[in-house]
Amino acid sequence: MSENPENIEWQQTATSDAARAKALGQRGCVIWLTGLSGAGKSTIGLRLEAQLVTEGHAAFLLDGDNLRHGLCADLGFSNVDRDENIRRVSEVAGLFADAGIITVCTFISPMLEQRARARDIVGSERFIEVFVDASLEVCEGRDPKGLYARVRQGEIEEFTGITADYEPPVQPDLHLRTDTEDASASTDRIIDVLCQAGILSA
Amino acid sequence: MSENPENIEWQQTATSDAARAKALGQRGCVIWLTGLSGAGKSTIGLRLEAQLVTEGHAAFLLDGDNLRHGLCADLGFSNVDRDENIRRVSEVAGLFADAGIITVCTFISPMLEQRARARDIVGSERFIEVFVDASLEVCEGRDPKGLYARVRQGEIEEFTGITADYEPPVQPDLHLRTDTEDASASTDRIIDVLCQAGILSA
Repeated sequence: MSENPENIEWQQTATSDAARAKALGQRGCVIWLTGLSGAGKSTIGLRLEAQLVTEGHAAFLLDGDNLRHGLCADLGFSNVDRDENIRRVSEVAGLFADAGIITVCTFISPMLEQRARARDIVGSERFIEVFVDASLEVCEGRDPKGLYARVRQGEIEEFTGITADYEPPVQPDLHLRTDTEDASASTDRIIDVLCQAGILSA
Repeated sequence: MSENPENIEWQQTATSDAARAKALGQRGCVIWLTGLSGAGKSTIGLRLEAQLVTEGHAAFLLDGDNLRHGLCADLGFSNVDRDENIRRVSEVAGLFADAGIITVCTFISPMLEQRARARDIVGSERFIEVFVDASLEVCEGRDPKGLYARVRQGEIEEFTGITADYEPPVQPDLHLRTDTEDASASTDRIIDVLCQAGILSA
C-alpha cells in the first residue's frame, strides 16, 4: 500500500531470454517444416511435439489446418490471403519463440519468399528450415486427406505440386527424404539438429 | 528405414493437456487484464510475467502495443479494426494456453462484448478476467505514455475513458484497485488466484 499511489513509480521489469532459458531448460526456436501435402509434415510435427513434451520440454505445434479455423478463419485461398496467412503464422511463431517455446510449424508454405519472410520475422538465428521432401508420386499415393483425388476429379483448382508451384528450399537447415526414411528417424534427425544448435542439451 | 516407405502408416500422435501439465508443472491459462490507459495493466503484467518466470514457470506477456507492431500491424483504429485486433489476440492467447503457458494479456479491451468473445475463444474454464481499476483522474495523472495530454490538446480524437466508452467488467474474476494498492500487492493477488484455481501449486 502507498499513501500516494498516484505517485508510485511504475517500474517496468522485462523478462530476459536468459531468465526464460533458465526456467525452461531450453531456448526458444522455430522449426519450420515445408513440403507438399502428404510429404509428412504433420506426422513428423506431431511426433516431434509429443516426444519433446514427453521429455519435459515446452514444445508446441502450429498447424496449417488448425490455424485456418481460428486466427486465420477470415482468410481465403487467394494468393494475397495465402501470403497473409503465412505472415500471421510467422508472427505468432516468433511470439512463441520469444516465450522460450520450441515451436514446430507445419505449413506447405510453397514460396521461397514466404519462407524468407518467416525467417526474417522470427530471426534467422532461431529459425530452422526443414524440407520435408517426398516425390509427388509418393505424396499422391499417400493422399492422407483425399485432396489429390479431389484435384484429379477437378474439384480443387489450385493445388501445390499439381496446378500450383512448389519452390523447394535452396539450402534448408535439414533435408528429410520421407520416401526413404520413416517418421521416427526423421524426428530423431530434427532432435539431433536441436542438440547441435544448443537449443536442447545433448 | 522401411523398404516400402510409401506404405508407412503415418500414425498421428497427439499431445494431451495432461502431458503438457506434467512437463511444465502448471496448467495453461489466460489472465486477461483490462482497464484504462494508465491503470497499470502493463506494469502489473510485466511484473507478473517476470515473477512467474523467475520461479521457473512458462509465462508470457501478450501486450497491446507490441502486437500492433507485428501480428496486427495491418490494422488501424476503426471500431472494426479494433474488434479484429482483439479477436486475433484472443486466438493467439488461446494457442498459448493450449501450449500450457500462463499467458498474460494486457489490452484496454474496453467493450464487454470483446472480452466475452475473448473468454469464448479461450474457453471460460481457463480464462481469468482481471479488472485493473483506477479512476480516470489517477490514470490521467500518471499518463505514462503522454497520451492523455495529447487527447486534451486535441491531437487524439478517440480515446477510451474520455471520448470513447469503457465498459467495466460486471463480474471480473479479480478486481484490482491500483489507486490504493501497489503493483507488487496486485501481482501477489493474481498469483493467489492462480494457486486457488489449481493452475499453480500453492
